[in-house]
Amino acid sequence: MAGTIEARILALDLVLPEPKSAIATYVPFVHTNGQLLISGQLPMKDGSVAATGQLGRDVALEAGQDAAKLCALNILAQAKTALGDLDRITQLLRLNGFVSAAPDFADHPKVINGASDLLVEILGDKGRHTRIAVGCSSLPLNAAVEIDAVFSID
Amino acid sequence: MAGTIEARILALDLVLPEPKSAIATYVPFVHTNGQLLISGQLPMKDGSVAATGQLGRDVALEAGQDAAKLCALNILAQAKTALGDLDRITQLLRLNGFVSAAPDFADHPKVINGASDLLVEILGDKGRHTRIAVGCSSLPLNAAVEIDAVFSID
Amino acid sequence: MAGTIEARILALDLVLPEPKSAIATYVPFVHTNGQLLISGQLPMKDGSVAATGQLGRDVALEAGQDAAKLCALNILAQAKTALGDLDRITQLLRLNGFVSAAPDFADHPKVINGASDLLVEILGDKGRHTRIAVGCSSLPLNAAVEIDAVFSID
Repeated sequence: MAGTIEARILALDLVLPEPKSAIATYVPFVHTNGQLLISGQLPMKDGSVAATGQLGRDVALEAGQDAAKLCALNILAQAKTALGDLDRITQLLRLNGFVSAAPDFADHPKVINGASDLLVEILGDKGRHTRIAVGCSSLPLNAAVEIDAVFSID
Repeated sequence: MAGTIEARILALDLVLPEPKSAIATYVPFVHTNGQLLISGQLPMKDGSVAATGQLGRDVALEAGQDAAKLCALNILAQAKTALGDLDRITQLLRLNGFVSAAPDFADHPKVINGASDLLVEILGDKGRHTRIAVGCSSLPLNAAVEIDAVFSID
Repeated sequence: MAGTIEARILALDLVLPEPKSAIATYVPFVHTNGQLLISGQLPMKDGSVAATGQLGRDVALEAGQDAAKLCALNILAQAKTALGDLDRITQLLRLNGFVSAAPDFADHPKVINGASDLLVEILGDKGRHTRIAVGCSSLPLNAAVEIDAVFSID
């Protein structure tokens, strides 16, 4: 039986993607001392990167926001695998938002809002988090966005 | 009545800026488990970004250092809003320093020293912190520098 | 008498570099609340940066991986200075991997695997960590890679 948070995901007509498992010596999440650390998530959909390229060069703002939403869904998918029940999340503490961005791009916050807004929509006040939003010269697999997260859990 | 640390800020002839409040679903700070996390701060002064552009292209080293100082003051302004009294800080644990930088710029540490040195001047040994200093292809609002922080608090 | 982990380092024919001491107001490590935070480490060898330039421009993939290995050894060297005995590490929680990378470079994960794989080889299951791997427009001293770390310790 899904919890409150998964019910909200369903009500938003969203589906958590299949979480990408570790393909290397690093792992997608670690529990430690009441916190859940999630590795950087790319905008994966059906097993491939859904948004490639650079904001301010060949990726439009709205496509960047959609990519950030996908990163957020992949973060939640990893959290569900780690926790079993997303209702165990007590607070989203941190998002680190990395945007593949041209030298004169300035709207990194608007891109990462795609993730921030969705996570607050899903998690409510427990989703209100600190964050950074910065521009990267490039990202793994030419992804447009990469986001990692830290949750507090009970 | 201001505490010891605020007295030092005054003695240095510095004024904490008005902290930028949340303009989105993210928040400027979160307390958790004895730590205070601060969102990435830009070199805001009087409500606008005081230093825009890229180090190694159109921003001189000294201007970059001044921008890092402003980021540090904005970090302290957020911490004061969060804590009421800056004397509750027991240690600055971490600064993550992001410098908007051209491909051949190499002096990121000197830029971020603008923040590191000021924070040790203000906080004393409690201000000695771990950090990273890296180059970004661009930053929000074309800012020259963005810095986030983690404090331990009592 | 060296512990188990140092014995493994020796068995791999590796030598921990001389840890770079603080050259500024920041410090190479901070202990806090059961965690050891390590500042960003460059690929230092014998006191200078062993790999400079950008992946996808003038640094080959294998050279980038070797640079990441050197960052990992410098991380362990700092941890040894901090802890005395590396056997006090209970888990590597996090690696943040920053790769100096051209706009169309896509193999950041393969570069940072140089560090991830070595740390698991040395630390065993205690070395399995969360991480990010992102591209930077430039790094301090023109280094090809910078990596920071968080360990849990007993």
